[in-house]
Amino acid sequence: MEPVDFLITPRWLLPIAPANVALEGYAVAVTAGRIVAVGPVAQLESRFDARERISRGSHALLPGFVNAHTRASMALMRGLRVHAPVLRWQRETVAPAESIVSPDFVREGTQLAIAEMLRAGITAFSDSYLFPEEAARAAGEARMHAAIGLPISEVASEADSAAHLDRAAQLWDDYRADPWVSLYFAPPAPFAVGDSTLARLRIVADELDARIAMPVHETALEVRDSVSQHGLRPLQRLEKLGLLRPGFTALHLNHIEPADVALAASAGLSVVACPQADLRLGSGSCAVTSLLQAGVPFGFGADSPAASGAFDLLAEARLAALLSSSDLSSADALSAATLGGAIALGLSATCGSIEPGKSADLICIDLATLACESFTSVTDAVLFGATRRQISDVWLGGRAAVSESQLLAFDERELLRLARQWADRVAQGVTP
Amino acid sequence: MEPVDFLITPRWLLPIAPANVALEGYAVAVTAGRIVAVGPVAQLESRFDARERISRGSHALLPGFVNAHTRASMALMRGLRVHAPVLRWQRETVAPAESIVSPDFVREGTQLAIAEMLRAGITAFSDSYLFPEEAARAAGEARMHAAIGLPISEVASEADSAAHLDRAAQLWDDYRADPWVSLYFAPPAPFAVGDSTLARLRIVADELDARIAMPVHETALEVRDSVSQHGLRPLQRLEKLGLLRPGFTALHLNHIEPADVALAASAGLSVVACPQADLRLGSGSCAVTSLLQAGVPFGFGADSPAASGAFDLLAEARLAALLSSSDLSSADALSAATLGGAIALGLSATCGSIEPGKSADLICIDLATLACESFTSVTDAVLFGATRRQISDVWLGGRAAVSESQLLAFDERELLRLARQWADRVAQGVTP
Repeated sequence: MEPVDFLITPRWLLPIAPANVALEGYAVAVTAGRIVAVGPVAQLESRFDARERISRGSHALLPGFVNAHTRASMALMRGLRVHAPVLRWQRETVAPAESIVSPDFVREGTQLAIAEMLRAGITAFSDSYLFPEEAARAAGEARMHAAIGLPISEVASEADSAAHLDRAAQLWDDYRADPWVSLYFAPPAPFAVGDSTLARLRIVADELDARIAMPVHETALEVRDSVSQHGLRPLQRLEKLGLLRPGFTALHLNHIEPADVALAASAGLSVVACPQADLRLGSGSCAVTSLLQAGVPFGFGADSPAASGAFDLLAEARLAALLSSSDLSSADALSAATLGGAIALGLSATCGSIEPGKSADLICIDLATLACESFTSVTDAVLFGATRRQISDVWLGGRAAVSESQLLAFDERELLRLARQWADRVAQGVTP
Repeated sequence: MEPVDFLITPRWLLPIAPANVALEGYAVAVTAGRIVAVGPVAQLESRFDARERISRGSHALLPGFVNAHTRASMALMRGLRVHAPVLRWQRETVAPAESIVSPDFVREGTQLAIAEMLRAGITAFSDSYLFPEEAARAAGEARMHAAIGLPISEVASEADSAAHLDRAAQLWDDYRADPWVSLYFAPPAPFAVGDSTLARLRIVADELDARIAMPVHETALEVRDSVSQHGLRPLQRLEKLGLLRPGFTALHLNHIEPADVALAASAGLSVVACPQADLRLGSGSCAVTSLLQAGVPFGFGADSPAASGAFDLLAEARLAALLSSSDLSSADALSAATLGGAIALGLSATCGSIEPGKSADLICIDLATLACESFTSVTDAVLFGATRRQISDVWLGGRAAVSESQLLAFDERELLRLARQWADRVAQGVTP
């Protein structure tokens, strides 16, 4: 008998891959933070000597959700008024409030966000905000898979731009071998960066084999302006500049035509839809089923929690399914919320599905509720019957972060106190 | 000191009316099932001798949610495949499955739905389905406010039609004085009922002073067909037939022009939007902010849970706010989910707000979570930070139906067993 750390026996297993099906009578063996085996309970029980057996008789076991585009520490900005359109909101409401954003704000905000995300079954996230070194440190300390974006701003001269990218490359070296944190380049939007900076970014990203994630086609206005200014739609312009490649993640992609989808497919892009934030900010929504048909992988992101509210990948996936007029199945929506997000983060070899060799980033959802029990499809029960509060257990690399609905490894009371303090400061618009 | 049954002291009180504000340091006194007083804690404590004191130090106290249009027992049809457009789904998927619908199905399905709704903070509902006498009995037994629709089908001859309406009038007499259950007429849709039946319905409804609730402008096709067949948009046709009056509730109203809104306002209609079901079935969505501006009261409904999933008024209200691109505030969305729904049911003198004299149909939502604590607006915290699983307490006419997250007065285990049985039968398409 092979020794393993633990064996989980849920009522249903939703491995997402290699087959996206619901399995009954299956178990998962975990050791040293990795998934060792997935198979029928009897088979695994006869093969492994488990130090701990975890039975979840009314639960579904899934890979953890991936919040594939967010601005984690903006969790502290949920006192802000929200209004559309997005660019006006950013200029008139968010930018003035950001005068109080400091390294402390980002560190404590990211800690709060991580705790909240874990409680909601999110086991990996992609962050794009200020002071990325603080977000990277918070994710590393929590031993949670995270891709942290390095902001690329337009700068005055070519020399400045080069220096800016060089500094990014230095931080890159710090995280090259990190088991939890990876970095990527995060330009703000096509219209906010000139051709020469984008061309230079391409060279640096190629040298470092770095991913790039960038809001593209977020608003109809952005697409119209690009056509009138460059004679090209934003995706076409990025292709001309050589940025589109499998390491490129297009965020939002709300305003697309068949030619855009074809370009995304041929260039091997991945996409992150942000259903809740984009609807609330009047930006429209991403036609994910056209991506699905074209074979373009996509995940979901909460974007700024100041707009989307609670970190809730189940709600994001559910809204995407509703917006598709039922064309996106519950199974495909859950695949996007897990494996699709992992692909968009460049982490699909590490997490996003329950397969041997992957990190044991796992969650259990309790389905013994009146709403869930009357579904016959397990994926329908999870997507349309459950809420994130039914997530009972979360493992990060095999380590229990939430157990029986209790958050471990964080002082929740202290985080609540910090959350209230910062929220009040943001609402009052004063510096600490 | 005046004796009262109990005094509830929440952290925040959201009375919805007379002012839709969040109050801190307030309490509510309840006796004999009714709200006696709403005021500052010290004032109420000095005035009342409460037999029980209920303190909810991290909670918001709200009027219960009103599910203003639903098909409760279709909770047992959540095994069905969902696909758009709605009429095709009803014809190809729902209608064949309805061969198993019996009085038992409706009674047990409505009991399950009531238990599930209570757990989700819904304290009143409007039901429109088959065997309405069974739904009425289930609501009455649960002592829950409900408006039960009497189906009005098109029949072959005028004599048949008269007999059909006469039978409805008889059931009417049974419930004329019922404290919990009221009845209304529920024609299926304008296109499914001819002018002569609608004219007759009008006469009977006027005689009985009965409300009418009817899907109108649910799909774009319905509006187009009406214009080509009658030369009138559906609402215009109903006005010509004399049906539009304050006792008329327009369900869905997804496809509206300014003239439709003006007509709804001048006729004194109320409206029920069904955000989740309508998106999922490809029917579009109701532009509730245009109703708000015109002073047309509106609520939210889950419609068929086979399409919307779990009964979740918080999710319906949140989706309406998202779809409005932030034009619908969280305070207005919560008002619609409570008082707006009560108006649509003709029950706003009885419930829908926390005001002296109204039925003590109340709910507490626990806001001591990481997501909720970082909001500065209580209504934002409820709408964008909470899930229905944070609803801890529910009172129906002052009687505790849910207490500290436990469902009382229902054998949940037995309901779960019934839910599974029926779901299996629906999925297998066999009669019991």
